[in-house]
Amino acid sequence: MFDGLAEAGLFGVPFSAEVGGRGLDHPVTATAVAIEELAYYSSSIAAVFDVHCILAGNALTHGTTAQREKWLPQVARGTTVGAFATTEPEASSDLSPQALRTVAVPHGDTWVLNGRKRWISNSPAAGFIVTLARTGERMSMFIVDTNLPGVTVGEPDRKMGNRGQLTADVWFDEVELENDALLGGEPGHGLRHALATLTLGRIGIAAAGVGMAQAAFDHAVAHLSTREAFGRKLAANQHWQFRMAERAAEIDNARTLYLKAALRRDAGETFAEPEASMAKFSGSALAVDMARDAVQAFGGLGFVREQGADGTPGPVEAIYRDSKIGEIYEGANEILKGVVARTIFGKEITG
Amino acid sequence: MFDGLAEAGLFGVPFSAEVGGRGLDHPVTATAVAIEELAYYSSSIAAVFDVHCILAGNALTHGTTAQREKWLPQVARGTTVGAFATTEPEASSDLSPQALRTVAVPHGDTWVLNGRKRWISNSPAAGFIVTLARTGERMSMFIVDTNLPGVTVGEPDRKMGNRGQLTADVWFDEVELENDALLGGEPGHGLRHALATLTLGRIGIAAAGVGMAQAAFDHAVAHLSTREAFGRKLAANQHWQFRMAERAAEIDNARTLYLKAALRRDAGETFAEPEASMAKFSGSALAVDMARDAVQAFGGLGFVREQGADGTPGPVEAIYRDSKIGEIYEGANEILKGVVARTIFGKEITG
Amino acid sequence: MFDGLAEAGLFGVPFSAEVGGRGLDHPVTATAVAIEELAYYSSSIAAVFDVHCILAGNALTHGTTAQREKWLPQVARGTTVGAFATTEPEASSDLSPQALRTVAVPHGDTWVLNGRKRWISNSPAAGFIVTLARTGERMSMFIVDTNLPGVTVGEPDRKMGNRGQLTADVWFDEVELENDALLGGEPGHGLRHALATLTLGRIGIAAAGVGMAQAAFDHAVAHLSTREAFGRKLAANQHWQFRMAERAAEIDNARTLYLKAALRRDAGETFAEPEASMAKFSGSALAVDMARDAVQAFGGLGFVREQGADGTPGPVEAIYRDSKIGEIYEGANEILKGVVARTIFGKEITG
Amino acid sequence: MFDGLAEAGLFGVPFSAEVGGRGLDHPVTATAVAIEELAYYSSSIAAVFDVHCILAGNALTHGTTAQREKWLPQVARGTTVGAFATTEPEASSDLSPQALRTVAVPHGDTWVLNGRKRWISNSPAAGFIVTLARTGERMSMFIVDTNLPGVTVGEPDRKMGNRGQLTADVWFDEVELENDALLGGEPGHGLRHALATLTLGRIGIAAAGVGMAQAAFDHAVAHLSTREAFGRKLAANQHWQFRMAERAAEIDNARTLYLKAALRRDAGETFAEPEASMAKFSGSALAVDMARDAVQAFGGLGFVREQGADGTPGPVEAIYRDSKIGEIYEGANEILKGVVARTIFGKEITG
Repeated sequence: MFDGLAEAGLFGVPFSAEVGGRGLDHPVTATAVAIEELAYYSSSIAAVFDVHCILAGNALTHGTTAQREKWLPQVARGTTVGAFATTEPEASSDLSPQALRTVAVPHGDTWVLNGRKRWISNSPAAGFIVTLARTGERMSMFIVDTNLPGVTVGEPDRKMGNRGQLTADVWFDEVELENDALLGGEPGHGLRHALATLTLGRIGIAAAGVGMAQAAFDHAVAHLSTREAFGRKLAANQHWQFRMAERAAEIDNARTLYLKAALRRDAGETFAEPEASMAKFSGSALAVDMARDAVQAFGGLGFVREQGADGTPGPVEAIYRDSKIGEIYEGANEILKGVVARTIFGKEITG
Repeated sequence: MFDGLAEAGLFGVPFSAEVGGRGLDHPVTATAVAIEELAYYSSSIAAVFDVHCILAGNALTHGTTAQREKWLPQVARGTTVGAFATTEPEASSDLSPQALRTVAVPHGDTWVLNGRKRWISNSPAAGFIVTLARTGERMSMFIVDTNLPGVTVGEPDRKMGNRGQLTADVWFDEVELENDALLGGEPGHGLRHALATLTLGRIGIAAAGVGMAQAAFDHAVAHLSTREAFGRKLAANQHWQFRMAERAAEIDNARTLYLKAALRRDAGETFAEPEASMAKFSGSALAVDMARDAVQAFGGLGFVREQGADGTPGPVEAIYRDSKIGEIYEGANEILKGVVARTIFGKEITG
Repeated sequence: MFDGLAEAGLFGVPFSAEVGGRGLDHPVTATAVAIEELAYYSSSIAAVFDVHCILAGNALTHGTTAQREKWLPQVARGTTVGAFATTEPEASSDLSPQALRTVAVPHGDTWVLNGRKRWISNSPAAGFIVTLARTGERMSMFIVDTNLPGVTVGEPDRKMGNRGQLTADVWFDEVELENDALLGGEPGHGLRHALATLTLGRIGIAAAGVGMAQAAFDHAVAHLSTREAFGRKLAANQHWQFRMAERAAEIDNARTLYLKAALRRDAGETFAEPEASMAKFSGSALAVDMARDAVQAFGGLGFVREQGADGTPGPVEAIYRDSKIGEIYEGANEILKGVVARTIFGKEITG
Repeated sequence: MFDGLAEAGLFGVPFSAEVGGRGLDHPVTATAVAIEELAYYSSSIAAVFDVHCILAGNALTHGTTAQREKWLPQVARGTTVGAFATTEPEASSDLSPQALRTVAVPHGDTWVLNGRKRWISNSPAAGFIVTLARTGERMSMFIVDTNLPGVTVGEPDRKMGNRGQLTADVWFDEVELENDALLGGEPGHGLRHALATLTLGRIGIAAAGVGMAQAAFDHAVAHLSTREAFGRKLAANQHWQFRMAERAAEIDNARTLYLKAALRRDAGETFAEPEASMAKFSGSALAVDMARDAVQAFGGLGFVREQGADGTPGPVEAIYRDSKIGEIYEGANEILKGVVARTIFGKEITG
């Protein structure tokens, strides 16, 4: 599937022509729309694309010229798979040097990396992992080639949903990194790079949420318009009419929010806040809400992956399972409401 | 207050230059924004403006050239007050010839009008009332001069909120109307004129809802940021941070929705649906939700009109009382969800 | 109205026979049910009763034998009106010695009281006010006769709702109190007395919320069952059917919760938590939700206090205005959710 | 597992001593509590128990003495597995003779059964299936031995959740039934038997919902109380404190509702409405809500069935998948809100 996306030129959408990308005028917006469309059919594929382009690929744009020239064409063409690693078993939302256990220590011309990362998407297939590590008092990012000795990717997690998006733990055991693995060439900028990347990530998750919500909506409308009970279409029930009217408005709103955030990024702003956070917590929650409605609209068929009698596939149960992770990853919705609150009340009050 | 708005040229915003208006490029959008701004300070004033311009004034734009030249300059300059009458004691949402009891019967060159209208905003001060009446099998609108014999405006209703927006019953008792009172010059188009006008009305109510929500939000933020309890600002409570972050997103969404609908009208579409209906039911509900939060944030002070001890005015209780009518008038929210459902499922299913 | 309640023997419900009460087996439950019934017709009357019996009266039960014998018969017979004062302009939810500005200082055989209280229900009519004051490092309660020199009750607040329940600021200016005014005879127990009383107060507010919700529900059902639109009863709309089915369940739940809490008090427990807090935040929120639905069901008539044309009273607008205070007073709902959270997570975590 | 429940005597809980049951004073209440406890650990096991006892077993209690003596001891001892079949591919909520395609035709001393049933729980393991079929103008129930020629059970459905509760299609192809297979001995009472049984089923699903909600709540509380982020326990966040306080109240309410309904059945009432329907739609929705919260509280770990790195099981993802079916089966929540609405507005209005 990854190769298919590569062949279709999809990985070039986010990037400039000089590194092998499409060189679009509104690359962030186009990328987000691509994610919505992919998520309409598969949340997993959208997530693979998102991690490869928006997290790993975008992080690389903060690299030195040499780094960008080495890695970005591979990303844009899809000849290697990218991953991005900040989370650890004991540090997830809290990305502070105190919380981080993954450490890189300078050793002559090289760095030695030790630590363990968790929930690292794409890692079982990745050629490189952009990795956050503590370097002294501050943090830095490193481009870690997964072929290096000491890099071990664990068994993929068995997940409730998004099963096509492989995640796993990654161990770094005395991994020796050349100096050119240090993203941007200077230590200490890891947090800044991570935050800029994660903001972009929020837009991606928001778009994916809208795609799933729209898919669940469309499936539900089709079913409600054709299935009959008590001598009339299900959609003749006012309950479903009102519910779907409300959802239609919510989908429209959530789509507008992520587009607003994306357009601000395309206009040159580093942090498209509060729109990006608003879009992410709205879009991801809506996908879960709408998936629940869609399963309900289908009744028993909403609850199956496949009907035993004749192999009829359940059209929406995957959306129900997949969508929940959107409220959790790339900034839990609680964290993002805090981000918006900070813009409202100021940091002195919210901390 | 009405004269003040007139003096400020506000009533010219919706209208073309040829009838004395401002001749703006985006008159609907500008009018809606004006309503949001007015409602920020007073829902009543916004409603007076809305009924005068968006209902009465807009209905007149469907008139003959003579009708438009006679009435619209007065509306645009604010030298007379306009009202608009469709609702009756026994007919509100249901505007069908069967439901309507107000009847106009041709009598030589004139029409004789009999009936009773209810909840007619501006009527106690109106110079004319654009009135829906049954004419045979169909319906028509008439421009009724309130000075005509047989026109009686009742005592204003004593309302929970929007007290500055006077509403009353209006009786028509053998009112003789010249033929030029028939809006558009031809009978039978009343429903079409009413619906086109009411669609515009939805955008106005949506904008007013956003204005009230924004006012309640701003008052609440100011209070939460300064009032202390348990040794810290109220806004240090995560509950309020998250709640206000969610409301900020909702206000942004509701504003976008009414602007979208207004821009579609400005682009020449008669019915800006489903956006207008979505905007109306979202914006009006949000105003009520946000007003409730604001009263809660202020505690006791949120519940008073005036503190007895020192005359301190309660900053948000009026918004709590005013906002509720937005969910009811110019298309109850239930009706509008039905409108959106019809665009989703089709008329054969929804009826 | 107060005299009418007295004549009907209602003030005797909460109290034992020895102090002139009814001596019921389940006095707390009976009192709460009485409040639900009163609130069904008038939230204000229920609140007057509540403050007189549950706050002022109950606080007196913590008094010495002499205090109980002196005051409780007057309360139970309704020959004097009781009030209860803890809140101050700068201290509401936060009842700590640091926050409290009202101070009582021993002076020979007497205490001298100075300070100011706010939102003191019944105070404009009260014969005595049970008042919380700082006494040294701790707090104490005093039974303050309102006829004493230095006691001033301000103008009643002009409120959005509960207008029949008078509230005002109360000033204490060098008020000299005999030693027998110290509730319980020993200083330092004020917080304990206040908290025990306020717990009981929560049950009362919960019951009042249920009464208002039930009234709004009944009015709405009656209207939906008779009013027609589009050729059928409003209640033929599935939207209203489902909404009212949900509300019916919520009313049943809220009633059960306050009865559970009341029965625990009657069984001898001082703090009927978490039931009392759960009942209060559920019942008060439900009243607001249900009032909003009821206004909506009535449409325009839901928004008026009186129709101008014929004086028809609006049946539910008062419930809309009255119910909101239930979420605020006698423990804001946010505070009570904190109380329940403390029972779930423990004080070490919640603080 | 089924044998384990049998050995523990659990299948005897619902039944009288004379047919081999425990002969409890409050069998319905005890059965519902057993279901809550089973669902606390496994929704599937609770559902298997429910279908065996509450649907199949309870339906048999409407049988003739001979039928009860033949089948109930086997059910109560768990020596055979029972199933219950009303739903068909084209008839689910709508159990009317017009909708039903499964037909039994008298043929001499026997009946010949043809048709197809869908989503029949326990059927892959069942010894008998109590089956609803059309008999002329009305409907009847038959006790169908699964060993009879012409009875075919399809492949189990592959479901999102409740995977331990096997469901499948069942085909009846010219199945010849002895007259003693006709439940109750007289034709035409099928709908009455089905409805009485399904009412009981609602109580069971309500109890299962409460069990799942309680399990999700307990897991979440344990995690929030121990996991740290930003230097403090997750439960130190007010968001989680308030959310869990609200859920605690809702769980209490939902448990009370199903107990009320069960106690009414134990007191001899056939239909414990509206409590049974209220309990079912409340309890099942709450389980889904609470499961969503629990997954969110756990973050990534909430989304996994098993962490790849070390096999740590995800404690709550199964509840998320399992709980959704509770809103759908044994009376979709929409149907049950209609049932409650009928008790509020009367059948003339609601239909």
